[in-house]
Amino acid sequence: MRERVEPFRAMAIGQLARELEAEGRSVIHMEFGQPSTSAPAAALAAVRDALDCDPPGYWESVALRQRIAQLYRERHAIEVDPSRILLTCGASPALLLALLARFEAGDRIAYATPGYVAYRNTSIAAHMQPVTITCGPDVGYRLTADAIAALDPAPAGLIIASPANPTGAIIAPDALRAIADICRQRGIAIISDEIYHGLHYTAPAHSILEFADDAFIVNSFSKYWSMVDWRLGWLLVPPAHVDTARAIAGNLFLTPPSPSQQAALVAMDCSDELQGHHSMYARNRALLLDALPALGLANIAPPDGAFYLWADVGHLTDDSMAFCTRLLRETGVALAPGVDFDPVAGHRFIRFSFAPDSARIEEALRRLRPWFAAQARID
Amino acid sequence: MRERVEPFRAMAIGQLARELEAEGRSVIHMEFGQPSTSAPAAALAAVRDALDCDPPGYWESVALRQRIAQLYRERHAIEVDPSRILLTCGASPALLLALLARFEAGDRIAYATPGYVAYRNTSIAAHMQPVTITCGPDVGYRLTADAIAALDPAPAGLIIASPANPTGAIIAPDALRAIADICRQRGIAIISDEIYHGLHYTAPAHSILEFADDAFIVNSFSKYWSMVDWRLGWLLVPPAHVDTARAIAGNLFLTPPSPSQQAALVAMDCSDELQGHHSMYARNRALLLDALPALGLANIAPPDGAFYLWADVGHLTDDSMAFCTRLLRETGVALAPGVDFDPVAGHRFIRFSFAPDSARIEEALRRLRPWFAAQARID
Repeated sequence: MRERVEPFRAMAIGQLARELEAEGRSVIHMEFGQPSTSAPAAALAAVRDALDCDPPGYWESVALRQRIAQLYRERHAIEVDPSRILLTCGASPALLLALLARFEAGDRIAYATPGYVAYRNTSIAAHMQPVTITCGPDVGYRLTADAIAALDPAPAGLIIASPANPTGAIIAPDALRAIADICRQRGIAIISDEIYHGLHYTAPAHSILEFADDAFIVNSFSKYWSMVDWRLGWLLVPPAHVDTARAIAGNLFLTPPSPSQQAALVAMDCSDELQGHHSMYARNRALLLDALPALGLANIAPPDGAFYLWADVGHLTDDSMAFCTRLLRETGVALAPGVDFDPVAGHRFIRFSFAPDSARIEEALRRLRPWFAAQARID
Repeated sequence: MRERVEPFRAMAIGQLARELEAEGRSVIHMEFGQPSTSAPAAALAAVRDALDCDPPGYWESVALRQRIAQLYRERHAIEVDPSRILLTCGASPALLLALLARFEAGDRIAYATPGYVAYRNTSIAAHMQPVTITCGPDVGYRLTADAIAALDPAPAGLIIASPANPTGAIIAPDALRAIADICRQRGIAIISDEIYHGLHYTAPAHSILEFADDAFIVNSFSKYWSMVDWRLGWLLVPPAHVDTARAIAGNLFLTPPSPSQQAALVAMDCSDELQGHHSMYARNRALLLDALPALGLANIAPPDGAFYLWADVGHLTDDSMAFCTRLLRETGVALAPGVDFDPVAGHRFIRFSFAPDSARIEEALRRLRPWFAAQARID
């Protein structure tokens, strides 16, 4: 019997949050990685127009694939053949598609811990063996070439993420190059989750594609483009695997939603509106970085990107799920328990999502100050 | 190395069709199983309204799950707990989810041949072993309990479909009950693909759920509800497997598109409009059944349901892909090669989809009459 696929614990927090709201409580949702903003106005208008001639049928937009190729040209000065881009119902199935297209049952798949829960669980669901690479505060929560070199035996695959969830850590270009090099030397195939590209507060993230042209790249319209409810992402596939990936996608998924594709094509040209969201996240990040030390949360990793902050609460708990449950019940602030992202050390961590609007972040901090002060006294 | 996931050959026909259209040719699309009608007008209106308050975030509609439970009550007099219903991005990922939630790598999964190509390919992609059960014209293309009893060893799982693709064959309730009984005796877990429920020209299809309450049921809004481009389906999961299936879905897929869920809830109450589509399919079926014998296609299976007709062209070809390619180039009528549905006998079969509107079906027949007459002379 293979290892068990664990549920997202944050889902249980989200469920409790909804129950409290149903009782009339005010809840500030910082438990999920979802923008509080809607899709860009022009994108919604495009869907409205398209509804008048709702195009039936399975459809994959060639124009959108070309526009995504343009994104790689603009962001990374890389030419990508649009036929290498497979549109999917979000980044999650794109990751699964990459795993199934590239690996066999039993293959060992490595990823950094703390990291996004689906790297482990999707590997298990796909009958592969997860291999954790512990990347703690000593390395700034960043995967390194040395850590990959130390894996024995070499895994078949590596999932990397920069910016990372839950830490927002961005891997610098030199370190990315070293990772690409060691993977090439050791015959390790790379899947790079670049879903948080575009959301950065230090230098922009580089793509692994700049250093490893045979990597699989996962991305989505859910974060930077603020289209989480439209379920649209993509997988960029190395040329040698396009036919296999397309055959698998044609059986497992068929095509993504047509209205979402119409919206996404327009959203990619809505830079001003999206830049506004980005500025809001930057303000929220500053609010948290300013306030958290005074709550006694001194051991935090200032995020380079994404909209998450990973905070050590080991002085207050060794059960982050119980901690988040109690914090939600007592303050109405929903946070994600660290155990979702690290089954071991995560019991002593929590993750803040700062995607909500700034007024909500400020209100959350007003509620958290007295609560954390009281915890310190209990402690 | 596991067996290869084969591409849909019909996709290549569809691609050629689009190339011919780009050259200015008129093409009648009968190669895919997609309604030519849009989502119901009221469903589109509901999406338009919802766009004004585009709800961000991951969302699974409780109301829609309750409405689907009501469907089982109305169609089959079965009470289903809505918590057993998982909403997915179409029937394809629902099938994958059922396989991953219920089976292990290496498990043998049986299904009828001819049958939908994804039963084989998704099993292979999920690292399982496909087992074909040949169900030819002698058994009306219908899976039987006897055929399942004869499998040695018993497979871990069975995928059944009624109405079936590509034949439209519906399995009668007594035969369904016998299938459920033999599977129970032999410890075979059932996945029932009921995506064509609602589309029948003889007696309505029964659900395997009436005879096996521990079956997984796959369904979708793509066919009866005419919402193929909205990518929304569901998996009904037996109680013992709900937690596992939900944990897997939460990692592999997250939630389905919000606008699609809003549209689907309204579409389920649009019976009059949907009945109109159904009547059109019935007319189209009669047109084909009336015309095909005169084309020399005498060996056809009159479909009980769905919108497909499976026709033997063995007197004209033993390469259905080459046959469909030539037929498309010479007449502008796109059909699916039988090899998609049966890797062996399918070389001598083609599948008509009669989902297009009746005027297009009539035009297709006008083009096919002289072409088939010429083939007979060449022959």
